[in-house]
Amino acid sequence: MTSMEGTPKKRSTPVLDRVSIPADLRALPESDLVQLADELRQATIDAVSVTGGHLGAGLGVVELTVALHRIFDTPRDRLIWDVGHQAYPHKILTGRRERIHTLRQPGGLSGFTRRSESTYDPFGAAHSSTSISAGLGMSVARDLKGETNNVICVIGDGAMSAGMAYEAMNNAGAADARLIVVLNDNDMSIAPPTGALSRYLTRVTSGGVYLHVRDLAKQLAKRLPKQWERRAARIEELSRTYWSGGAFFEEMGFYYVGPIDGHDLSQLLPVLQNVRDADRGPILVHVVTQKGKGYAPAEASPDKYHGVVSFNVLTGAQAKPKPKAPSYTRVFADSLVAEARKDSRIVGITAAMPDGTGIDVFAKEFPDRAFDVGIAEQHAVTFAAGLAAEGLKPFAAIYSTFLQRAYDQVVHDVAIQRLPVRFAIDRAGLVGADGATHAGSFDLAYLGCLPHFTIMAPADEADLVHMVATAAALDDGPSAIRYPRGEGTGVPLPREGAPLPIGVGRVVREGTKVALLSLGGRLKECLAAADKLSALGLSTTVADARFAKPIDHALVRQLARHHELLVTVEEGSIGGFGSQVLHSLSGEGLLDGKLRIRSLVLPDVFMEHGAPDAMYAAAGLDAAGIVGVVLAMIGNDVLTGGAALSHL
Amino acid sequence: MTSMEGTPKKRSTPVLDRVSIPADLRALPESDLVQLADELRQATIDAVSVTGGHLGAGLGVVELTVALHRIFDTPRDRLIWDVGHQAYPHKILTGRRERIHTLRQPGGLSGFTRRSESTYDPFGAAHSSTSISAGLGMSVARDLKGETNNVICVIGDGAMSAGMAYEAMNNAGAADARLIVVLNDNDMSIAPPTGALSRYLTRVTSGGVYLHVRDLAKQLAKRLPKQWERRAARIEELSRTYWSGGAFFEEMGFYYVGPIDGHDLSQLLPVLQNVRDADRGPILVHVVTQKGKGYAPAEASPDKYHGVVSFNVLTGAQAKPKPKAPSYTRVFADSLVAEARKDSRIVGITAAMPDGTGIDVFAKEFPDRAFDVGIAEQHAVTFAAGLAAEGLKPFAAIYSTFLQRAYDQVVHDVAIQRLPVRFAIDRAGLVGADGATHAGSFDLAYLGCLPHFTIMAPADEADLVHMVATAAALDDGPSAIRYPRGEGTGVPLPREGAPLPIGVGRVVREGTKVALLSLGGRLKECLAAADKLSALGLSTTVADARFAKPIDHALVRQLARHHELLVTVEEGSIGGFGSQVLHSLSGEGLLDGKLRIRSLVLPDVFMEHGAPDAMYAAAGLDAAGIVGVVLAMIGNDVLTGGAALSHL
Repeated sequence: MTSMEGTPKKRSTPVLDRVSIPADLRALPESDLVQLADELRQATIDAVSVTGGHLGAGLGVVELTVALHRIFDTPRDRLIWDVGHQAYPHKILTGRRERIHTLRQPGGLSGFTRRSESTYDPFGAAHSSTSISAGLGMSVARDLKGETNNVICVIGDGAMSAGMAYEAMNNAGAADARLIVVLNDNDMSIAPPTGALSRYLTRVTSGGVYLHVRDLAKQLAKRLPKQWERRAARIEELSRTYWSGGAFFEEMGFYYVGPIDGHDLSQLLPVLQNVRDADRGPILVHVVTQKGKGYAPAEASPDKYHGVVSFNVLTGAQAKPKPKAPSYTRVFADSLVAEARKDSRIVGITAAMPDGTGIDVFAKEFPDRAFDVGIAEQHAVTFAAGLAAEGLKPFAAIYSTFLQRAYDQVVHDVAIQRLPVRFAIDRAGLVGADGATHAGSFDLAYLGCLPHFTIMAPADEADLVHMVATAAALDDGPSAIRYPRGEGTGVPLPREGAPLPIGVGRVVREGTKVALLSLGGRLKECLAAADKLSALGLSTTVADARFAKPIDHALVRQLARHHELLVTVEEGSIGGFGSQVLHSLSGEGLLDGKLRIRSLVLPDVFMEHGAPDAMYAAAGLDAAGIVGVVLAMIGNDVLTGGAALSHL
Repeated sequence: MTSMEGTPKKRSTPVLDRVSIPADLRALPESDLVQLADELRQATIDAVSVTGGHLGAGLGVVELTVALHRIFDTPRDRLIWDVGHQAYPHKILTGRRERIHTLRQPGGLSGFTRRSESTYDPFGAAHSSTSISAGLGMSVARDLKGETNNVICVIGDGAMSAGMAYEAMNNAGAADARLIVVLNDNDMSIAPPTGALSRYLTRVTSGGVYLHVRDLAKQLAKRLPKQWERRAARIEELSRTYWSGGAFFEEMGFYYVGPIDGHDLSQLLPVLQNVRDADRGPILVHVVTQKGKGYAPAEASPDKYHGVVSFNVLTGAQAKPKPKAPSYTRVFADSLVAEARKDSRIVGITAAMPDGTGIDVFAKEFPDRAFDVGIAEQHAVTFAAGLAAEGLKPFAAIYSTFLQRAYDQVVHDVAIQRLPVRFAIDRAGLVGADGATHAGSFDLAYLGCLPHFTIMAPADEADLVHMVATAAALDDGPSAIRYPRGEGTGVPLPREGAPLPIGVGRVVREGTKVALLSLGGRLKECLAAADKLSALGLSTTVADARFAKPIDHALVRQLARHHELLVTVEEGSIGGFGSQVLHSLSGEGLLDGKLRIRSLVLPDVFMEHGAPDAMYAAAGLDAAGIVGVVLAMIGNDVLTGGAALSHL
C-alpha cells in the first residue's frame, strides 16, 4: 500500500463522466462545456500526476480540445495533433479515459497519438511539424475520393519553425486545398522559442488584445461563404493592424483568422464553426494559449512542467528520484565546457533542445558561442558545416532520431566536404517511455555507411569525457559520439578528457574461447555474461570497441583468430557496427575457417514503449540473452550440464 | 579527327582574356564590364557546347557573376552559389578558364562548386537550398573571429521552396546576422515552379517593372547606414506596392531590396555596392533574371536547355545519341501509368523533378492524380503518408540522394506507421558526371535498417515493370524500388507487370562451386563473371536477389549450403544488402563451417565524377573485379594456371 498523505481526494467529474466519446460531448448542452473543460483539465492533471509525462502542453489546449470535438465530427473529420504530446485531454475524450492511467507505462497508452491506438488518431506523431503535410495529403485524398470531411491540424508556434511545416504551407497555399490549420501559439514550445517567426508572432499578439467574436465574424465575412458577403462592407471598420497581423500566413496563401483567446470557449466555438462551414481554404486559425493553464505550478514554471515525473497534485512537487550517477547528457555538457575553456574555436549548436542536449550548460558559460536555431535540424547541421568551413569547431548536439531530419545535410554538406562537424548524439539506443519514435536505433547504420566519418560510443560516462576530447581534437573530418538517455554507470570521472587513439578499442577482460565485442553501453552486460560463461567453464574475452567506424581491425582480427566464438553486441539496428565487423572479417577471409560469429542487434521491429532494461532484455541484449546466444552457438548439448562442455 | 562542319569559329574575347582571377576583373575600367559579360556568356556557351552540362542557369547569372566579383572582394568575401550548377561563369572568372572544357569529364572540373577545387568555392553544393544555412554559419564564424568579410549567398526562387532555406532565413532574421542573400528569381527553376511562394514572387514581379537605381537608393536609405537617414524623408514618394513586395522576407527579419533587373549591370553594381557598404543585416536582394539569357535556343526552351549534352552552338541542336533501350525512368513511368489505369487509388508525387522521375508522363494521363510539391522532399513524403492513411496508393518518385532529405519522414511518418507509401528511387548507385553528391550509394543501408520495409532492385527494365506491379499490390507496409540512372539493358518488356512473390529471388544460372548473388543492375556483370569462372573450371551459380529486404532466406541458405564460395554484389555502400546476407547467415550459423563469403559493395570513399562503367570497374564491381575476388578467395596458386584448380 502506498501512502495517500498529501494526495487530494479525486474531485467528482459529473459532466466528464457522461462523455465517453466525442459524440457524447456534442450531445451536451452548450452551457455544460465550460464545466466539461474544467473537469477535463482536472482529469489530465490527475492522470499525469500518477504516470508522469507531458503536462503543460495538454493543459494549454483543454478548451481547444473540447471546442474541436464539439464543432467537428470526429473521427469522420480528421483531427491531427502535431507532435501529439498535447493530446492527453483528447485521449480522455476519445474512449481512452479508462486507460489514461496507463499513459507511457509498459503495455499502456502511448504518450503521443497513434493510428493503432484509436480511430480518433488519424495520423500518429511524436516528432514535430508533420501535421500540415499529413493533413494536406488527407485533404487531397478526400477530394479524390469525392468525400466531404474536414481535416484539421493543430500545430504549435515552435513547430512552425521547422522547414517541413513551411514546405507544407507553401504547397497547401498553392493547391488551395480545403484544410484547416490551428496555430496553437503559446510562445513557449519546449525551450523559449527562437527565430524570426517567433518574434513575428510575438509582435502580432504583443498587445494582448484579442479580437472579439463580433469582430471575428466580420473578419471571416470577407473570406468565407457567399452568404456572408453582404456583411463585407463593414470590414472597413476593422483596424488594419489586425489584418497585417496575418501577413506572413496570407503570403503563404492561407486565409488568416485571429488571434483569438484559446481558453475562451465563447470565442473558440463560433470561430471554429464559421471556419468549418466556410467552403474555402486553406485557413489558418491563430489561437493564443498558455502552457500549463489552470494548474498554478505549471503556469509559474512552464519549462519545469513541460515533461514531468509523477507529482503531488496539491503542491506540484515532482517525485524525482535521486540519481545514482550523472546523466550522459550532463557529462557531455560538462566535458564540452571543459574543452571549450581550452579552445576558443569550440561552439555548441542545438535545435530547440538546450536542456535535453546539455547545450544550456554550455550556453551559461559561453553565451556567444552557443546557438539555438529552433526546431530546424536541417539548418542546424549545415549551419554547423558553415562554421566548420571557417575553422571553428562546432558540436551539433542532436538526438539520434532528430538527426534523421538532417540526414542529407550530414551526407551532402558535412561528409562529402569532410568538414569537421562534431555530432553529439544523445538518446542513442532505446529510450523507454517515449517509444519507437524516439528510439535512437538507426544512427549506426545511417552514419556507418558514410565515408570519412568517425563514430564513437562510450561504454560509460568516463569514456564519454575522453570521447568529447577526441572529437575536439579530431579536425580532419566529421565525427559523432552516440550515447544513451539517462544515468551513467557511476564510474569515477577523469579530471580531464584525453583524446583516444582513433579506431582503437580495448580488451577489458582476457579469455581464450569466447570473445564478446561490445560497442557502447552494453559492455556491463557483456561483462556479466562473461562471468556466467566463465562459471560454465567457457573462458571469455570481453572487448570494448569504442569506435563503430573506423573499427579496430587489429582487435577484430585478433579476436577472430584466437577465439572459437565471436559475438558483437550493440544498441542499434542491423547495418551498424556488427555489419562493419562482419564485412571486415569476411573481406579478410577470416570467416572462411571455423570461427563462429554472431551479431547481436536490436530486433527488426519498432519496439513498443517500455522500461529500457526490460526492452533490452526482450531484445536479447542483456547478459542472459548474450549467454543464451553463446550457449546456442556451442550446441544444445551444453545446456544439459557443465560436463558436456569438455568437448570444447 | 572530328568534323568541324557547322561549328562557328571561336569568337575573340579580348576583355575576358585579361581576367584570370576576380582581382583582374576589379582592375578593369567599369566601361569594359558589359563587354566582359558578353564574352563570358560566349565562353560559357562554347564550353558547355562541348562538355554538356547545365547551361540555362549559368547564362542567367552572367551579369550577376560579373557584378558580384566586381563589388565583393572574393575570395576574402565568401560567395556561395546555391546548388552550384549555375557557377560555370564563376568558374571561368576564378582561375578555371583553362580547365573549363573538362567540366563534368572524368578527372575534370566538377559540374558544381567544390571546396577542394578552388578557394573561390567556400562551400560546395549540388543539392539545393543549403546556401543560407552555410552562409549564416560563415557569418557567425566571422563575427566570432573578429573579422569583417562579407558573406553572400545566391539562391534561386525554386530553392526557396525547400524547408531548410526557410529554417535558415528564420534563424538569420532572428540572429540579425550581417549576411547578404541574393534571390535569383527566374521563375523557372528546373520544372515550372510550384508553391505559394512562387505565386507570391510572380505577383511581386508581375508588372515587369523594375525599380530604377535612383529609387533603389531611396529604398536603401531607410534601412541602411545612418548617413543615409537624411534622405529618408523622400521614401514616402515610393509606391507602397514596392514595399509590400518584400513583405514575406521582411516578416522573416530580412531587409528587402528589389526587385531589380539581373541583366542590367547599371542596376546591379550600385545596388550591390550599397548593400555591401551597409552595416546592417541580413539583407535580401531580389534579382530577376532569365534562364538561358542571351542564347536564343535556350531562351526559347528553358527546360530543354537546363541540362544539355554537347550541342551545335549555331543551331542549338543537341547531339543526343539514339538510346539503345528505354531508360529505367521511362519504364517506371509507363509501368506506373499502366497500373494506374487499373487502379484509381494510385497517385504520383514528385518533388520538383517531374521530368527526371517520369511523373510528367503520369501527369499527362492523370493530371488530377499527380502532385509536384516543389523542392520539398520532407513534405512530399509525409504528404504521401497522409494520402496512404486515407487508403490511396501513393508512389513517391524521388532520387536516391534527394530522399536523404526526407529520411526522418520515411522513418517516423511512413515506416513506424507501416503506411503503404511506395518509393520509386531513381538514380540509385553511381550516376556518372554528377558525381558524389548525386550518387545513390546509401539507400540500401538507410532503408535496409528500417522495420516493415520491402526493398526491391531490378536487374533489368523488365523486372522493373513487375516491381511496379508488386509495389502497387503491396498494401500492408512501405516499399521501395531502387533503379539506376540511364538506359535499361534492352530486354523485351512484358506486356503487363505481374506482382512478384515478396522476398523471393531467382536462380539465373546453376553451378556447383561458386555462387554469385546479385542485387540490381550488376546481374549482367555477374553472368559475365560466371562465364569467365566457368572457363577456368569453376562451376558458378548466379542468382538475382530481387529483394534487398526481406532477403530470400531460403535462397541464401541454399546458396550457402551447396557452394564453397558465396559472393554478394550490389550497387551500394556497406550496410545494405550484403550486410543483410551476412547477418542472416551468421545468425543461422551458416558461417560456422567452411563457407567462404565476400560482400562486394561500393568502396568507402566518395567517388569522383566519371563514366559509370569506369567507376564501377574502379570499384571492383564489374565482371573482372568479381572474377578477381573469386580467384583471390581460392588462393593465389590458382592464378598460376588452370591445373591448380584441381584441388577444389
